[in-house]
Amino acid sequence: MIYLDTDYMAGAHPEVMEALNRTNMFHTPGYGDDKFTRRTRSLILEACDLENGGCQFMVGGTQTNATVIDRLLSRNDGVLAADSSHINVHEAGAIEAWGHKILTLEHTEGKISASQIREYIENFYADDTFEHMVRPGMVYLSYPTEFGTIYSKEELSEIYKVCGDFNIPLYIDGARLAYGLNAKDNDLGLKEISRLCDVFYIGGTKCGTLFGEAIVTKNPELLPRFTSLMKLHGGLLAKGRLLGVQFEALFTDSLYDKIGKYGVDMALRLKDMLLEKGYRQFIDSPTNQQFFILPNPVIERIKKEVSFELWGAPGSDESKVRFVTSWSTPADTIDKLSSIF
Amino acid sequence: MIYLDTDYMAGAHPEVMEALNRTNMFHTPGYGDDKFTRRTRSLILEACDLENGGCQFMVGGTQTNATVIDRLLSRNDGVLAADSSHINVHEAGAIEAWGHKILTLEHTEGKISASQIREYIENFYADDTFEHMVRPGMVYLSYPTEFGTIYSKEELSEIYKVCGDFNIPLYIDGARLAYGLNAKDNDLGLKEISRLCDVFYIGGTKCGTLFGEAIVTKNPELLPRFTSLMKLHGGLLAKGRLLGVQFEALFTDSLYDKIGKYGVDMALRLKDMLLEKGYRQFIDSPTNQQFFILPNPVIERIKKEVSFELWGAPGSDESKVRFVTSWSTPADTIDKLSSIF
Amino acid sequence: MIYLDTDYMAGAHPEVMEALNRTNMFHTPGYGDDKFTRRTRSLILEACDLENGGCQFMVGGTQTNATVIDRLLSRNDGVLAADSSHINVHEAGAIEAWGHKILTLEHTEGKISASQIREYIENFYADDTFEHMVRPGMVYLSYPTEFGTIYSKEELSEIYKVCGDFNIPLYIDGARLAYGLNAKDNDLGLKEISRLCDVFYIGGTKCGTLFGEAIVTKNPELLPRFTSLMKLHGGLLAKGRLLGVQFEALFTDSLYDKIGKYGVDMALRLKDMLLEKGYRQFIDSPTNQQFFILPNPVIERIKKEVSFELWGAPGSDESKVRFVTSWSTPADTIDKLSSIF
Amino acid sequence: MIYLDTDYMAGAHPEVMEALNRTNMFHTPGYGDDKFTRRTRSLILEACDLENGGCQFMVGGTQTNATVIDRLLSRNDGVLAADSSHINVHEAGAIEAWGHKILTLEHTEGKISASQIREYIENFYADDTFEHMVRPGMVYLSYPTEFGTIYSKEELSEIYKVCGDFNIPLYIDGARLAYGLNAKDNDLGLKEISRLCDVFYIGGTKCGTLFGEAIVTKNPELLPRFTSLMKLHGGLLAKGRLLGVQFEALFTDSLYDKIGKYGVDMALRLKDMLLEKGYRQFIDSPTNQQFFILPNPVIERIKKEVSFELWGAPGSDESKVRFVTSWSTPADTIDKLSSIF
Repeated sequence: MIYLDTDYMAGAHPEVMEALNRTNMFHTPGYGDDKFTRRTRSLILEACDLENGGCQFMVGGTQTNATVIDRLLSRNDGVLAADSSHINVHEAGAIEAWGHKILTLEHTEGKISASQIREYIENFYADDTFEHMVRPGMVYLSYPTEFGTIYSKEELSEIYKVCGDFNIPLYIDGARLAYGLNAKDNDLGLKEISRLCDVFYIGGTKCGTLFGEAIVTKNPELLPRFTSLMKLHGGLLAKGRLLGVQFEALFTDSLYDKIGKYGVDMALRLKDMLLEKGYRQFIDSPTNQQFFILPNPVIERIKKEVSFELWGAPGSDESKVRFVTSWSTPADTIDKLSSIF
Repeated sequence: MIYLDTDYMAGAHPEVMEALNRTNMFHTPGYGDDKFTRRTRSLILEACDLENGGCQFMVGGTQTNATVIDRLLSRNDGVLAADSSHINVHEAGAIEAWGHKILTLEHTEGKISASQIREYIENFYADDTFEHMVRPGMVYLSYPTEFGTIYSKEELSEIYKVCGDFNIPLYIDGARLAYGLNAKDNDLGLKEISRLCDVFYIGGTKCGTLFGEAIVTKNPELLPRFTSLMKLHGGLLAKGRLLGVQFEALFTDSLYDKIGKYGVDMALRLKDMLLEKGYRQFIDSPTNQQFFILPNPVIERIKKEVSFELWGAPGSDESKVRFVTSWSTPADTIDKLSSIF
Repeated sequence: MIYLDTDYMAGAHPEVMEALNRTNMFHTPGYGDDKFTRRTRSLILEACDLENGGCQFMVGGTQTNATVIDRLLSRNDGVLAADSSHINVHEAGAIEAWGHKILTLEHTEGKISASQIREYIENFYADDTFEHMVRPGMVYLSYPTEFGTIYSKEELSEIYKVCGDFNIPLYIDGARLAYGLNAKDNDLGLKEISRLCDVFYIGGTKCGTLFGEAIVTKNPELLPRFTSLMKLHGGLLAKGRLLGVQFEALFTDSLYDKIGKYGVDMALRLKDMLLEKGYRQFIDSPTNQQFFILPNPVIERIKKEVSFELWGAPGSDESKVRFVTSWSTPADTIDKLSSIF
Repeated sequence: MIYLDTDYMAGAHPEVMEALNRTNMFHTPGYGDDKFTRRTRSLILEACDLENGGCQFMVGGTQTNATVIDRLLSRNDGVLAADSSHINVHEAGAIEAWGHKILTLEHTEGKISASQIREYIENFYADDTFEHMVRPGMVYLSYPTEFGTIYSKEELSEIYKVCGDFNIPLYIDGARLAYGLNAKDNDLGLKEISRLCDVFYIGGTKCGTLFGEAIVTKNPELLPRFTSLMKLHGGLLAKGRLLGVQFEALFTDSLYDKIGKYGVDMALRLKDMLLEKGYRQFIDSPTNQQFFILPNPVIERIKKEVSFELWGAPGSDESKVRFVTSWSTPADTIDKLSSIF
């Protein structure tokens, strides 16, 4: 069976696993106050060119989004986000559960624009009844988006400028960051992203670890008393060093980049193969998620040998599907797929 | 000055005020456990043909919506509502503050349809990832809507049928119920509304009282331990009898209907007058809110003598405006207006 | 029947009612943005000697406590309060419903002390695991307390000093403030209280209005975007002027003081009468609540003519009772009572 | 250095780690819907004699407590628990963050009794103002307690009977369950515990896994839509099989019992050694936590070679300390310690 459902179907990258095995019997203090985690914080902040920044670790993406957004917003603030965003669609209401409204903007291939954000905020303040409405208190982006697309440096710079104009923070969900940084035609590096937002997270779960996300901020004062808040959110891992150890492996010998590059290469080879065979995309993604429209008989035929997700409800003749590659996609996958299609 | 901004600019209808004065020095237990409130509960339930139903009183609409919705939903449920609905736009995030996502449907003149609701719920259960999404746990309507429009008996029956099919409650926000019940061409009476939903409230604040809304349900088991919940929501009035006394006045000698009829008559006279003078509506409302498009110079001229609200941002040549009448609109208002326009 | 159950059994003081009647048919903007409310804000701030302070109005005490505390605390902060405090015992969990833990201190006749507060906070910061504990983020007092007792100027000054030392706000619940300010041997005036805390509220519901509490702060920056927060909490009254009009009456011709003085005088006369007849107090209160221990046969006999509350579960021979007077206690009450006992 | 600070200082038991390594490169669906997790659920339910029961996995204890309690309680319910309980003291307010008050009972060596629970609930319903108070909606126990003590079968049976009498669920926090089940003089097996409560969790983090807790209930209807709720709480692990794989190891060849037995044996040897040397306990614990009072000079001397926690603030001459053993305590620890003391 070939697995292309999601990017979190295998365990950890062997080098990450090796680090966990190597350190397994050590005794260290809990909750992230250990030498591994401290060392990894420095490693990450250095890679981000944020020596005076802050770095915290949590277990999963929804937890991270809920905790960071909860910290950045006041009680009577909402978060601006694409209507297609993960927080709006696929987090079971975790943001609202903490009391915050998601103020949605219509997405274009998963993205929102600086002008949409500006218009929303200007309209808000222009409305006589704004005190009866939820104030836009921050902006949430995903990079890459839920549709595999990425923002350009220019687009991100413009968005960050709008946030600055209205003095609200910009937060980037980097669940698949490795695949974005290594996307075709990407012009944003880790250092640029670090500079062009207030808080973001470096995804581990989908990019090589068993679990874990590294939250990075240029300004630690934006996330005060964050350990206590993680505890309150049920997201402070007892054996916190597991996060430090895994991310240390990711940031050693450019493993994070290798993972991203490999996943994207597999995805682009898959895309080329399918295009060559005459199948149509419904979104052209430069990252590890690929979106195609397939005739239903093709779907029926291949799904005996390939595992993948329908994207939304099936159509009568053809349906939308998503294929996801990752660091764990076996090297011969595309060749095998080519013979199946 | 002629006031047409909203329907809550004056105090209480003189008969309501008279009832408050008459009972002012009596001593009674607090929190709604008094003879006035008990008597009024019976009066209202009788008028609704719900002798075995339940009736509770709260002070204001946002409070009522937040408390009822909070009681009807489980932690991981959301409420289906029009994107234009009061709870989605003008309650400062009060529903989300209690943890519930509003699942929005695109409105048509403020209304949503049975087929929209059905489609949303069917798509939800058809989605493989539905456990990661917010379950639609109830439906919220306003009657009349925020655009002054009303549902017909057929429309409401269909919506209630969909709710029944999926076993979720239907809740109707009746902030302006008096004006809906007395709308032109309305075919829904209080008894039909009582039958065609699970919970609704009879608006007092906009329909003759100083404040107060009467929550009615055919099935008291839907609102268990509601007094305690109102207290927790900060909405249990200490001198609860004030609500009973005011609503007793509303439901004596058909005052509630007289109020609704008067407000609507004024609104329709205003509409006829404006149409006659050649002004255009952007929504044709049969109730006490009227929506027109006026040339900006006209707006500038009349606003020295008439107070009203722009509806959204002003246009370059003409702008949308809303005029609201009520029981407190002076009888000579339309004649005066006619000479101003 | 003589009613001594609570201090909110009647409607409004006749002068308050007269003000509501006089202004009833005026048309004004809603939500507290009207001339009456603006004028009353100035009146109150002047009386408090806080010309640069802030003043906001809400409908009831639980709502006020929940909203103010929610504004003063960060997500991961709790409020220090007496275990006997209203917020801890009788608000149905309204504070926790907004996510905040109440950190309880053992009360002495309803009061807590500066040294208790200091010890709690010092222990918190001395604990190695403090990040896993709820940080004490503010202090809540009631004045008078739920047991009718009051703080002296020295006691309050010491408490406020501790708050200052740890840079956390002090909030005073003044539901029965009129009766505290006019208590026997009280050495705190409205101006001192205004100076010796960060936020407090002047109770209306129990002190002469139909409903309403006036929130006062020396520093409006402590309560930013408060109108929006009141809306989110379901506590922004549509016809906001009703609060302004009522409090204007209270602060005209010293009505608030007259109300307090009358209620206390009645209570002290009641106390003297009962002591003279040989009954025992279980708390010696200088305000409008009086706490006695009565033989059960006496209770049985008088309750045909007097309405009052048992304080906790009844005893086998004698039981604790509470008598509450107010501005609405008829002048001949004590004489009548004397003949009954 | 000898580490006796806590029971979560090492990674996973080697057999657990081996299972993770063996399955690392498999591809499986996420979120617990995989064959490992399904198999482990059966294994655990069989061990609990609850073939028709339910079993769910979460990452950590605070998260588990917050999610289970949130599911078991209605909005206006609180949880009865010892004042010394983990949820009340060391979860940073996670229970209150979800809106629920903790109703505290005074502990005796970490335990609460059936009669305390009964008295609290009876007093609640006997109070005339109970609608203004938080209803006790469930009971929380920890087994072993935060002081290492355990309940006897008789004590637990009595508590469960009280819960049954009032129709509220009993939930047991089993963070250290392995050490309780293998405690000296324990008369409760896994099957008895499964029978004598409604929901409990089998602790993994402190008992051999990298992380993870297994929630078990005899009645799955008590935890409806729990996957969705875990997601909303930020506690649904993407690579859910990691939990299944680890717990499968724990429940294979009695590893869970071996872990518990080893940890307790080490603790009891430590206790005997210290008693023999003349040191005093402040609590006599039969499990893996030991509580002693040591002279301050002894503390100063040994802490160069032993890592452990002070219990509360230090005293002037002697101080309270806690020593914690686990499956990872090296076999020669007690001998080494004996030569140090």
